[in-house]
Amino acid sequence: MISVAVVDAETPGNVGTIARSMKNFGLSELLLVDPPELDPDGEAYGFAGQAREDVLPNAREVSFDHLAESYYTVACTATTNEDASSHVRYPAKTPAELADSLAGVEADVCVVFGRERVGLTNDELARLDEVCSIPANADYPVLNLGQAATIVLYELRDLTVERDQHPADLHERADERAVEGLHEEFGSFLTAIGHPEEKRPKARRMFRRLLGRAHPTGRETRTMRGLFRRARQRVERIEDGEN
Amino acid sequence: MISVAVVDAETPGNVGTIARSMKNFGLSELLLVDPPELDPDGEAYGFAGQAREDVLPNAREVSFDHLAESYYTVACTATTNEDASSHVRYPAKTPAELADSLAGVEADVCVVFGRERVGLTNDELARLDEVCSIPANADYPVLNLGQAATIVLYELRDLTVERDQHPADLHERADERAVEGLHEEFGSFLTAIGHPEEKRPKARRMFRRLLGRAHPTGRETRTMRGLFRRARQRVERIEDGEN
Repeated sequence: MISVAVVDAETPGNVGTIARSMKNFGLSELLLVDPPELDPDGEAYGFAGQAREDVLPNAREVSFDHLAESYYTVACTATTNEDASSHVRYPAKTPAELADSLAGVEADVCVVFGRERVGLTNDELARLDEVCSIPANADYPVLNLGQAATIVLYELRDLTVERDQHPADLHERADERAVEGLHEEFGSFLTAIGHPEEKRPKARRMFRRLLGRAHPTGRETRTMRGLFRRARQRVERIEDGEN
Repeated sequence: MISVAVVDAETPGNVGTIARSMKNFGLSELLLVDPPELDPDGEAYGFAGQAREDVLPNAREVSFDHLAESYYTVACTATTNEDASSHVRYPAKTPAELADSLAGVEADVCVVFGRERVGLTNDELARLDEVCSIPANADYPVLNLGQAATIVLYELRDLTVERDQHPADLHERADERAVEGLHEEFGSFLTAIGHPEEKRPKARRMFRRLLGRAHPTGRETRTMRGLFRRARQRVERIEDGEN
């Protein structure tokens, strides 16, 4: 079970955005420490998408003490220390490393996000169990609160999303015999259009490399084969007529 | 070079959010097709963070034709087909697969995002070169536009971020000799505090497993060793006094 906590958010819109991302990535428990007022007609609900029906109205207001005492807490911060001389923000994991490290652990995890401007304070960070930081451009690594939360939840998706919206295979490659059939038809096509015999092996290698990189689907393979066959037959028919 | 295009956005705030995420992940060229008005005192600039100084004011208004003709275009959509029977939204890559596939290619890439409610139309999708889709909860896979863009740009970071804000090593493990020194001191500590001799090997194995999983830093290792030494010495001194 992975929960999300937001400490002292200023902007209701950010709370709504986080609620929506939680629903997008299969999380449901939202904990708020010192939240802004969440008006049902305001920005929090406006930004929450379908999470306005469950995640947001079910959000619970809790104390920071409650978080620290009841959960395995992961503090999210853009700022990490330069080295190990302090343990407030070091060592830290990236979100991908966090996902890997939580994969084998049964725990009540709470991912904790701080204020829009200043994040979590050092005193708050010192009470949380682990630090997570998103790698970003050194010149401007501070993400918007809602964006930071979205990335962390996205990275945790293997732990929280039971079934995603994609078909079982997002890219189903044609079977090899179908692809070879296309290559054979391509060879016949080269002959029919009168491509010089000595150049045909090179053209076939070119086409093999091109298709090889594209990993054609079954339908792409059938359609391309049909088009080359049609061209060959058209040429053959015209030539038969001419004879 | 990777650019970002937003087609027919309704909400200036989303354009600002995308500009900020672009700067967070090292991108700079923002292209807008039929954008809303971007008032310098409005939400676009309000949401852009430091990108209000460069990415957002440098954004260019272009036509959809210009995108399709000038870039290797990647269409981002939450909705993919169930199978290969149509090629409007199939095959698709996940953002991570997209990053991998672009790693070896020199191209003017443009990642294209659509409208808040309906995304890109089928006619628009049909003109773009490749499809990318974020895996999310099947029950509610439609992310907010700004969140979707942030995740895709985050996944492309290895191609766009020259240097991130993290120290070279986000988690510097102590060298093995230092860790072994801690284990030896722990052994002496067990003796000093009078932990039963027959139980000491088991306690040392327990401590080896615990430390092994935690990958202690040099500083953690030194501090823990110092604390066990201090405890041992305190006990020894008291016992010397008693004698």
